[in-house]
Amino acid sequence: MKIIIVGATGTMGKYLTGAFEKEHEIIRIASKGGDIQADITSTESIESMFRQVGPFDALISTAGPTYVGPWKKMTDREFRKGIDGKLMGQVNLVLIGQHYINPKGSFTLITGALTDEPQLNFANASAANGAVEGFVRAAAIELENGIRINAVSPTVIEDSPQYFPFFPGEIPTTMQQLEYGFRKSVFGAHTGQVIKTY
Amino acid sequence: MKIIIVGATGTMGKYLTGAFEKEHEIIRIASKGGDIQADITSTESIESMFRQVGPFDALISTAGPTYVGPWKKMTDREFRKGIDGKLMGQVNLVLIGQHYINPKGSFTLITGALTDEPQLNFANASAANGAVEGFVRAAAIELENGIRINAVSPTVIEDSPQYFPFFPGEIPTTMQQLEYGFRKSVFGAHTGQVIKTY
Repeated sequence: MKIIIVGATGTMGKYLTGAFEKEHEIIRIASKGGDIQADITSTESIESMFRQVGPFDALISTAGPTYVGPWKKMTDREFRKGIDGKLMGQVNLVLIGQHYINPKGSFTLITGALTDEPQLNFANASAANGAVEGFVRAAAIELENGIRINAVSPTVIEDSPQYFPFFPGEIPTTMQQLEYGFRKSVFGAHTGQVIKTY
Repeated sequence: MKIIIVGATGTMGKYLTGAFEKEHEIIRIASKGGDIQADITSTESIESMFRQVGPFDALISTAGPTYVGPWKKMTDREFRKGIDGKLMGQVNLVLIGQHYINPKGSFTLITGALTDEPQLNFANASAANGAVEGFVRAAAIELENGIRINAVSPTVIEDSPQYFPFFPGEIPTTMQQLEYGFRKSVFGAHTGQVIKTY
């Protein structure tokens, strides 16, 4: 299977690349490094990436820039980081990528527990996640040729301990749980699902 | 109680104005008409509106422009209608309005069943709704001085029969159910809730 991993040089992307590259052809996408560079906040850059990659079977996105910071400093400007990044970046990967993906292919986007379980400083991520989840359910009834779409929703990630203090009492998602969430989406038959790893 | 209704000249806004104006001071906001004009896609316009209104006790938003149309014609450009409208428009009403609202005041935003129950042509609304709901839950733990925030989530509205064909089998939300949803948020003690009228 030819699998695109967007955000391949990040904590999640690196782990998933290692987990899947023995059995599949992995195309690593990142803003810097990787096999092909792409900026998911630019539709031109996304389009160019898909043209370079050509037909593919699955796209995994772990790319989710959002604004993390005090509520009182949050204005339209800060909020747009997650809107243009985690939300529209991932939406555009699907709206554009549907013209390049093989029949029966799949898109798997990244969301997170913050949709339903907010934490201080993360309102931007809660909103972006909620949007991605609504979009995934809607896209699932629109996509043709057996193309599927799901989201994987972890809590704070085991390999990102710098975030633990922001998630008091939250049991981290292990890297293996994260991998299994993506496995379920990419190799299973689900569509329109939010696969929670918690 | 001094209540701002944003979207006051629309189907929902007119009904809610009629329902609440006997017992409360209503400030009707609309892009055209109303008591004060505002464009919720402009932060300058929102700021100007709040300066004109002064301190208030509750804000009700029924303003939710989104793109409705065929999936295959949906690109970043069309998708931004709901992102800048129903999503960021309402987010900015809260981020800016929190500096004008009275202690123990409330914000009530509009979302809709499309978050969880998608329909063809409405992926943009599903995403915007999901974002608003995630935002409401997150804002509830950030707002200070007893300020509350909720969303009301109707299905297709009784007084908008032109939309019925797009919602096969969906039992419409009656105008009274809609009113009761907003009553629950404005006059109740809930916060961070999505009040479903279905």
